Amino acid sequence: MAAMKDVHNLFLQEKPTRILVALYRDRSQEKYASILAKRTDCTYSHTVKVLDEFAEKGLVTFQKSGRKKLIELTDAGRSLAEQVNQLVTSLHEVNGH
Amino acid sequence: MAAMKDVHNLFLQEKPTRILVALYRDRSQEKYASILAKRTDCTYSHTVKVLDEFAEKGLVTFQKSGRKKLIELTDAGRSLAEQVNQLVTSLHEVNGH
Repeated sequence: MAAMKDVHNLFLQEKPTRILVALYRDRSQEKYASILAKRTDCTYSHTVKVLDEFAEKGLVTFQKSGRKKLIELTDAGRSLAEQVNQLVTSLHEVNGH
Repeated sequence: MAAMKDVHNLFLQEKPTRILVALYRDRSQEKYASILAKRTDCTYSHTVKVLDEFAEKGLVTFQKSGRKKLIELTDAGRSLAEQVNQLVTSLHEVNGH
């Protein structure tokens, strides 16, 4: 597990990568910052900061749902997330070499 | 250019990514740490450190050529570099959105 973390961190920024991949992989439920923070082991405030950066880059949109803000990947965000997800998988394989 | 740097750095570790992509893209000449350092705007000592990490992960091999150490991507390294290169291209497109 330590080695796996190593090679990820050699190329990828850990937290934004985790958050993007979580948005992409877990399609079973609606996404809110608080849920993503738990899933990705990030603080709530850091998760919100990263999500704001994603929105600024056009990777996600926010939709009000009552008092909560629902997060959705845009087409550009989904396409990027797909590639990042593949890279994460490849990095797992490199670790297993 | 500033924005471009932003989105790269949001997901990718800058220097290792540059070094891997330089090894992949520039097939016109033999690769040595000193040349890569110049190309990627890294210090020589940091470049050597990153290359040692690459070698440890099985991404590159070193071959003695006189007093110099020639660097070559392994098959695993080339395959990973191809994906990272694609991701870098996609991130450029995100910046242009």
